[in-house]
Amino acid sequence: MASRTATRLVHPPREELEFTRVMAALSDPVRLAIVARLADAGSDGELACSTFALPVSKSTQSGHFKALREAGVIQQRDEGTRRLNRLRTDDLDARFPGLLDLAVPQGRDVVAGWA
Amino acid sequence: MASRTATRLVHPPREELEFTRVMAALSDPVRLAIVARLADAGSDGELACSTFALPVSKSTQSGHFKALREAGVIQQRDEGTRRLNRLRTDDLDARFPGLLDLAVPQGRDVVAGWA
Repeated sequence: MASRTATRLVHPPREELEFTRVMAALSDPVRLAIVARLADAGSDGELACSTFALPVSKSTQSGHFKALREAGVIQQRDEGTRRLNRLRTDDLDARFPGLLDLAVPQGRDVVAGWA
Repeated sequence: MASRTATRLVHPPREELEFTRVMAALSDPVRLAIVARLADAGSDGELACSTFALPVSKSTQSGHFKALREAGVIQQRDEGTRRLNRLRTDDLDARFPGLLDLAVPQGRDVVAGWA
Protein backbone atom coordinates (compact mmCIF):
# COMPACT_ATOMS: atom_id res chain seq x y z
CA MET A 1 0.00 0.00 0.00
CA ALA A 2 2.21 2.77 -1.32
CA SER A 3 -0.28 5.46 -0.39
CA ARG A 4 -0.23 4.44 3.23
CA THR A 5 3.51 3.98 3.60
CA ALA A 6 3.96 7.37 1.93
CA THR A 7 1.82 9.09 4.58
CA ARG A 8 3.79 11.53 6.67
CA LEU A 9 2.95 10.86 10.30
CA VAL A 10 3.40 14.03 12.31
CA HIS A 11 4.30 13.79 15.99
CA PRO A 12 4.79 16.82 18.21
CA PRO A 13 8.09 16.62 20.12
CA ARG A 14 7.91 16.24 23.90
CA GLU A 15 8.62 19.89 24.64
CA GLU A 16 5.81 21.01 22.34
CA LEU A 17 3.06 18.89 23.87
CA GLU A 18 0.15 21.17 24.77
CA PHE A 19 -1.87 20.49 27.90
CA THR A 20 -5.15 21.64 26.34
CA ARG A 21 -4.70 19.35 23.32
CA VAL A 22 -3.78 16.36 25.45
CA MET A 23 -6.79 16.99 27.71
CA ALA A 24 -9.07 17.22 24.68
CA ALA A 25 -7.60 13.99 23.30
CA LEU A 26 -8.33 12.24 26.59
CA SER A 27 -11.90 13.58 26.86
CA ASP A 28 -13.42 10.82 24.74
CA PRO A 29 -14.28 7.28 25.89
CA VAL A 30 -13.08 5.56 22.72
CA ARG A 31 -9.76 7.35 22.88
CA LEU A 32 -9.43 6.49 26.57
CA ALA A 33 -10.06 2.85 25.65
CA ILE A 34 -7.27 2.99 23.06
CA VAL A 35 -4.93 4.49 25.65
CA ALA A 36 -5.77 1.76 28.17
CA ARG A 37 -5.27 -1.02 25.59
CA LEU A 38 -1.86 0.39 24.73
CA ALA A 39 -0.91 0.85 28.38
CA ASP A 40 -1.72 -2.82 28.96
CA ALA A 41 -0.12 -4.09 25.75
CA GLY A 42 2.97 -5.43 27.52
CA SER A 43 6.32 -6.45 25.95
CA ASP A 44 7.03 -3.82 23.28
CA GLY A 45 3.74 -2.02 23.94
CA GLU A 46 2.99 -1.77 20.24
CA LEU A 47 -0.38 -2.69 18.72
CA ALA A 48 -1.67 -2.52 15.16
CA CYS A 49 -4.79 -0.41 14.56
CA SER A 50 -6.52 -3.53 13.23
CA THR A 51 -6.25 -5.30 16.60
CA PHE A 52 -8.49 -2.81 18.40
CA ALA A 53 -12.04 -4.12 18.49
CA LEU A 54 -13.65 -0.72 18.88
CA PRO A 55 -17.42 -0.26 18.60
CA VAL A 56 -17.07 2.49 15.99
CA SER A 57 -16.68 2.63 12.21
CA LYS A 58 -13.24 2.29 10.64
CA SER A 59 -13.15 5.95 9.63
CA THR A 60 -14.19 7.09 13.11
CA GLN A 61 -11.50 4.85 14.55
CA SER A 62 -8.90 6.40 12.23
CA GLY A 63 -9.98 9.84 13.41
CA HIS A 64 -9.49 8.86 17.02
CA PHE A 65 -5.98 7.50 16.38
CA LYS A 66 -5.11 10.68 14.47
CA ALA A 67 -6.39 12.88 17.32
CA LEU A 68 -4.27 10.94 19.80
CA ARG A 69 -1.19 11.13 17.58
CA GLU A 70 -1.51 14.84 16.84
CA ALA A 71 -1.95 15.64 20.52
CA GLY A 72 1.20 13.62 21.28
CA VAL A 73 -0.48 10.84 23.24
CA ILE A 74 0.53 8.03 20.89
CA GLN A 75 3.36 7.32 18.46
CA GLN A 76 2.38 5.75 15.14
CA ARG A 77 4.51 4.07 12.48
CA ASP A 78 3.71 2.12 9.37
CA GLU A 79 5.11 -1.33 8.79
CA GLY A 80 4.00 -2.78 5.48
CA THR A 81 0.23 -2.52 5.45
CA ARG A 82 -0.05 -2.21 9.22
CA ARG A 83 -0.10 0.96 11.26
CA LEU A 84 1.44 0.35 14.66
CA ASN A 85 0.65 2.37 17.78
CA ARG A 86 2.52 2.96 20.99
CA LEU A 87 1.64 5.06 24.03
CA ARG A 88 4.08 7.95 24.61
CA THR A 89 4.31 7.09 28.28
CA ASP A 90 7.72 8.65 28.93
CA ASP A 91 6.85 11.92 27.20
CA LEU A 92 3.49 12.24 28.95
CA ASP A 93 4.88 11.31 32.35
CA ALA A 94 7.65 13.87 31.89
CA ARG A 95 5.37 16.73 30.87
CA PHE A 96 2.15 15.94 32.78
CA PRO A 97 3.06 13.59 35.63
CA GLY A 98 0.13 11.57 36.92
CA LEU A 99 -2.16 12.23 33.98
CA LEU A 100 -1.81 8.77 32.45
CA ASP A 101 -2.25 7.22 35.90
CA LEU A 102 -5.68 8.86 35.95
CA ALA A 103 -6.60 8.22 32.32
CA VAL A 104 -5.61 4.55 31.98
CA PRO A 105 -8.03 3.21 34.66
CA GLN A 106 -10.79 5.30 33.10
CA GLY A 107 -10.05 3.68 29.74
CA ARG A 108 -10.08 0.23 31.33
CA ASP A 109 -13.55 0.99 32.70
CA VAL A 110 -14.70 1.91 29.20
CA VAL A 111 -13.34 -1.36 27.78
CA ALA A 112 -14.94 -3.33 30.62
CA GLY A 113 -18.28 -1.69 29.84
CA TRP A 114 -18.07 -3.00 26.25
CA ALA A 115 -17.49 -6.60 27.26
CA MET B 1 -32.75 40.68 39.27
CA ALA B 2 -35.49 38.14 39.75
CA SER B 3 -34.70 36.35 36.52
CA ARG B 4 -31.16 35.62 37.65
CA THR B 5 -31.94 34.58 41.19
CA ALA B 6 -34.63 32.30 39.77
CA THR B 7 -32.09 30.45 37.62
CA ARG B 8 -31.68 26.86 38.67
CA LEU B 9 -27.95 26.13 38.88
CA VAL B 10 -27.36 22.45 38.25
CA HIS B 11 -24.34 20.77 39.84
CA PRO B 12 -23.54 17.10 39.38
CA PRO B 13 -22.92 15.39 42.73
CA ARG B 14 -19.41 14.13 43.45
CA GLU B 15 -20.16 10.51 42.61
CA GLU B 16 -21.57 11.47 39.22
CA LEU B 17 -18.60 13.48 38.00
CA GLU B 18 -17.54 12.11 34.62
CA PHE B 19 -13.86 11.97 33.72
CA THR B 20 -14.48 12.74 30.04
CA ARG B 21 -16.57 15.83 30.85
CA VAL B 22 -14.03 17.12 33.35
CA MET B 23 -11.22 16.59 30.85
CA ALA B 24 -13.18 18.45 28.18
CA ALA B 25 -13.86 21.28 30.63
CA LEU B 26 -10.14 21.57 31.35
CA SER B 27 -9.10 21.47 27.69
CA ASP B 28 -9.56 25.20 27.12
CA PRO B 29 -7.11 27.97 28.10
CA VAL B 30 -9.78 30.41 29.32
CA ARG B 31 -11.36 27.74 31.50
CA LEU B 32 -7.94 26.78 32.85
CA ALA B 33 -7.36 30.44 33.71
CA ILE B 34 -10.66 30.55 35.63
CA VAL B 35 -9.66 27.41 37.53
CA ALA B 36 -6.27 28.89 38.43
CA ARG B 37 -7.82 32.17 39.59
CA LEU B 38 -10.22 30.27 41.84
CA ALA B 39 -7.46 28.01 43.15
CA ASP B 40 -5.49 31.10 44.13
CA ALA B 41 -8.48 33.04 45.50
CA GLY B 42 -7.54 32.40 49.12
CA SER B 43 -9.77 32.85 52.22
CA ASP B 44 -13.18 31.56 51.23
CA GLY B 45 -12.07 30.82 47.66
CA GLU B 46 -15.15 32.46 46.21
CA LEU B 47 -15.02 34.97 43.36
CA ALA B 48 -17.77 36.79 41.49
CA CYS B 49 -17.91 36.28 37.72
CA SER B 50 -17.50 40.04 37.29
CA THR B 51 -14.05 39.99 38.92
CA PHE B 52 -12.47 37.83 36.21
CA ALA B 53 -10.78 40.05 33.66
CA LEU B 54 -10.97 37.54 30.84
CA PRO B 55 -10.06 38.51 27.26
CA VAL B 56 -13.36 37.20 25.88
CA SER B 57 -16.88 38.57 25.46
CA LYS B 58 -19.35 38.44 28.35
CA SER B 59 -21.43 35.76 26.66
CA THR B 60 -18.37 33.63 25.89
CA GLN B 61 -17.30 34.01 29.51
CA SER B 62 -20.74 32.88 30.70
CA GLY B 63 -20.46 29.82 28.49
CA HIS B 64 -17.10 28.93 30.02
CA PHE B 65 -18.44 29.22 33.58
CA LYS B 66 -21.43 27.09 32.61
CA ALA B 67 -19.21 24.41 31.06
CA LEU B 68 -17.12 24.29 34.23
CA ARG B 69 -20.20 24.09 36.45
CA GLU B 70 -21.93 21.40 34.41
CA ALA B 71 -18.78 19.28 34.36
CA GLY B 72 -18.56 19.61 38.15
CA VAL B 73 -15.37 21.67 38.23
CA ILE B 74 -16.89 24.72 39.92
CA GLN B 75 -19.78 25.46 42.27
CA GLN B 76 -21.86 28.52 41.47
CA ARG B 77 -24.39 30.41 43.59
CA ASP B 78 -26.24 33.63 43.14
CA GLU B 79 -26.11 36.35 45.78
CA GLY B 80 -28.18 39.35 44.81
CA THR B 81 -27.00 40.36 41.36
CA ARG B 82 -23.67 38.57 41.69
CA ARG B 83 -22.89 35.03 40.64
CA LEU B 84 -20.21 33.59 42.88
CA ASN B 85 -17.84 30.79 41.91
CA ARG B 86 -15.85 28.32 43.91
CA LEU B 87 -13.55 25.52 42.78
CA ARG B 88 -14.80 22.03 43.78
CA THR B 89 -11.35 21.10 45.04
CA ASP B 90 -12.45 18.41 47.48
CA ASP B 91 -14.73 16.68 44.97
CA LEU B 92 -12.14 16.74 42.20
CA ASP B 93 -9.30 15.60 44.47
CA ALA B 94 -11.49 12.74 45.71
CA ARG B 95 -12.53 11.52 42.28
CA PHE B 96 -9.49 12.39 40.14
CA PRO B 97 -6.53 12.85 42.48
CA GLY B 98 -3.73 14.93 41.03
CA LEU B 99 -5.75 16.39 38.16
CA LEU B 100 -6.09 19.86 39.68
CA ASP B 101 -2.41 19.80 40.61
CA LEU B 102 -1.72 19.51 36.88
CA ALA B 103 -4.39 21.92 35.68
CA VAL B 104 -3.85 24.83 38.07
CA PRO B 105 -0.24 25.59 37.04
CA GLN B 106 -1.33 25.38 33.39
CA GLY B 107 -4.01 27.95 34.13
CA ARG B 108 -1.51 30.19 35.91
CA ASP B 109 0.65 30.08 32.76
CA VAL B 110 -2.34 31.19 30.70
CA VAL B 111 -3.00 34.12 33.04
CA ALA B 112 0.70 35.06 33.01
CA GLY B 113 0.61 35.09 29.22
CA TRP B 114 -2.18 37.68 29.29
CA ALA B 115 -0.33 40.09 31.55
